[in-house]
Amino acid sequence: MTDPARLTATDAARAIAAGTLTPAALMEACLDRAASREAAIRAFAHLDPAQARRAAARARPGPLHGIPLGVKDVLDTADMPSAYGSPIWAGHRPRADAAAVAAVRAAGAVVMGKTVTTEFASRHPGATANPHDPGHTPGGSSSGSAAAVADFMLPLAFGTQTAGSIVRPAAFCGIVGFKPSFGTLHRAGMKIMSESLDTIGILARSVADCALAIGAMSGRDLSAPWGGIEARPPRAPRLGLTLGPEPAKAAPETIALLHRAADAARAAGAEVVDFALPPILLRAAELHPALMNMESAQALAWELDAARPQCSAVLLEKMDWARSQPAPLLDEARRAQTTATMALYGLMGDMDALLTPSAPGEAPGGLDWTGDPAFNALWTLLQGPNITIPAGTGPTGLPLGVQLVGRPGEDRAVLGWARWLQGALG
Amino acid sequence: MTDPARLTATDAARAIAAGTLTPAALMEACLDRAASREAAIRAFAHLDPAQARRAAARARPGPLHGIPLGVKDVLDTADMPSAYGSPIWAGHRPRADAAAVAAVRAAGAVVMGKTVTTEFASRHPGATANPHDPGHTPGGSSSGSAAAVADFMLPLAFGTQTAGSIVRPAAFCGIVGFKPSFGTLHRAGMKIMSESLDTIGILARSVADCALAIGAMSGRDLSAPWGGIEARPPRAPRLGLTLGPEPAKAAPETIALLHRAADAARAAGAEVVDFALPPILLRAAELHPALMNMESAQALAWELDAARPQCSAVLLEKMDWARSQPAPLLDEARRAQTTATMALYGLMGDMDALLTPSAPGEAPGGLDWTGDPAFNALWTLLQGPNITIPAGTGPTGLPLGVQLVGRPGEDRAVLGWARWLQGALG
Repeated sequence: MTDPARLTATDAARAIAAGTLTPAALMEACLDRAASREAAIRAFAHLDPAQARRAAARARPGPLHGIPLGVKDVLDTADMPSAYGSPIWAGHRPRADAAAVAAVRAAGAVVMGKTVTTEFASRHPGATANPHDPGHTPGGSSSGSAAAVADFMLPLAFGTQTAGSIVRPAAFCGIVGFKPSFGTLHRAGMKIMSESLDTIGILARSVADCALAIGAMSGRDLSAPWGGIEARPPRAPRLGLTLGPEPAKAAPETIALLHRAADAARAAGAEVVDFALPPILLRAAELHPALMNMESAQALAWELDAARPQCSAVLLEKMDWARSQPAPLLDEARRAQTTATMALYGLMGDMDALLTPSAPGEAPGGLDWTGDPAFNALWTLLQGPNITIPAGTGPTGLPLGVQLVGRPGEDRAVLGWARWLQGALG
Repeated sequence: MTDPARLTATDAARAIAAGTLTPAALMEACLDRAASREAAIRAFAHLDPAQARRAAARARPGPLHGIPLGVKDVLDTADMPSAYGSPIWAGHRPRADAAAVAAVRAAGAVVMGKTVTTEFASRHPGATANPHDPGHTPGGSSSGSAAAVADFMLPLAFGTQTAGSIVRPAAFCGIVGFKPSFGTLHRAGMKIMSESLDTIGILARSVADCALAIGAMSGRDLSAPWGGIEARPPRAPRLGLTLGPEPAKAAPETIALLHRAADAARAAGAEVVDFALPPILLRAAELHPALMNMESAQALAWELDAARPQCSAVLLEKMDWARSQPAPLLDEARRAQTTATMALYGLMGDMDALLTPSAPGEAPGGLDWTGDPAFNALWTLLQGPNITIPAGTGPTGLPLGVQLVGRPGEDRAVLGWARWLQGALG
């Protein structure tokens, strides 16, 4: 029999519903896997096996009944510490669950532990290693979530994305990462940084798991418009092909992968056309750092004032830069976001999604840098669904991913086309 | 000499800068006033005079140096309890200040205490009474902030608005209430309900104080485009006159007041034209309750699950209704907000602001209902600046207000026109 820890959430939920697997047995398998791997991977900020077992024994009925789940440590949990990746918040115990955590528990999921985040979901990394090669970063900021899911310690984990913090680590770790449309999951109880950008999403080992989890939490049917995520769509998609606003950052293997994905999509019946980024999108991409960092510096007003020595140098550099910028730059960045998001609808025309790299290349070596979000920040800013699916490996054997990007609100279709694209890629 | 507690924040800041008043003396005057009035008004959720004195002694230099300020108890404070108007959170002590609280402290203001909010800034009222007649509500949800400012216990207090929670209580209490453009102050550390609507603002006894406080916190110059909030503008404004989406709710005195204000504006040189609400705005107004309550129900997922018996009946009624609605209704409400906000720019044409009632009439009798936000909810949804200024009294002698509404981002101009309108009203 398959090790239950290797099951996708969808398959595990089916087995639990059928009575062939129990929440307790599934949790035990995940805990076993974590026990053998956590010392090398360091995915968890908090993991108490006894607590996880108790939670599994109390799992509620629902679409995620008994599914172990990791909670990125920027989301509050009433029963576990929530330290946001910062020594300033060490040992912090919130009174309440974040809204998204309460929603996923109500859907039946079992919180197995808190997963490592970079400091405040920003740049300063945690200790997590890439399961495919512990000498490489797992990406960030959802580092622990990506590594734990990729390494079969649990099937589902929360991520959050402000620039590329779901899609990039998912690609680096060879799993699926889904950032739904902005606003899909409420951010109450999240350590929020950029109000205009921060989006809660999910990391998983299948597209169907992303649809299942985000659908269950948001009260939506995300299982593809054509009768289920595994069903065959009535037609092939029309895809816009782009390297994004900074094509020079794409490694050769990334460019080759994108062309391979486009060819595979065409071979499966898709129409793939070049999508050129007009100035309105390029300008929005340029303003993403101002939007992100100026809002983040407002968010961290207390930390920067009361606990500045406990902030990392890289955080202070970004925040001090942001504080030196004039308020009208923030206004300009917000206007650019609004106009670019509006423009996207027309620019995409009858395209179903954009096909674009998930990251510059393989996960960089070392654990001191989680990689460049150049292939993610614009798509986050545009507020629509972004999903990465695994697509082969790079020159050193580490995973690569390709990304689909949709218009805001088109989550269901983009999930469906991502599943279709996986089939096309073979 | 004037009682320092009667000074506006602007005048007090000038006196402190000139050395004719100290932060300690100003705080003492405010504490004296609170000591004599708080038993009747019940504006504070937390007030510790010794703590307030210590904070005044440590006041930092800045544009608000030494100004006592009340913090609505939906905003976290590191040194005071933060209970969000709910027994579920009784005694809660956050580790950090909310971003807005940290910002106002950095600007020199001294947090005097926490002010009473309705339960989660929703409908269930606190114990605060209207200083003009303690048998009447002060309005809500920023009940304690409005009452404390109106009763000279402090010159400035935070409010938050999701429907009408700044403008309505300010009007009921005869003071100025300013909801800046959506997103002006970061909501980190706020007990957020509706992500699409919640906006942090300020209650004060002058328009200039609102410009001073929000300007100091947001790093903007809000002191009127024509050389200072008290300066004479180069022209009179063009105003759009409207009773809003539910004109039938306006009391006769409210309709009379609006016409009186329009006549006074015309007499001072303004052009005042009727502003008819087209279907796109009326539909957005209809969808405000869905947007507010469906997002709030997501925000309160933990409370509704873990502490339902400690929620009020009126909250449960709203939240259960919201949870019974389909997710596409929330999507529709958000789309309606976006399209209505975009449409507002064209609809207002060359109008500088809309002139509209602040509330249906005087503050209702009794303390069990904080009044109807029918004259506020649409303007909050449209994300621009809303400001109420006192404008006479109603049939029972309680205060009335009139409101100016601007396009998003036009805070500076709307503050300037509000000051101009005060002059025109005489």
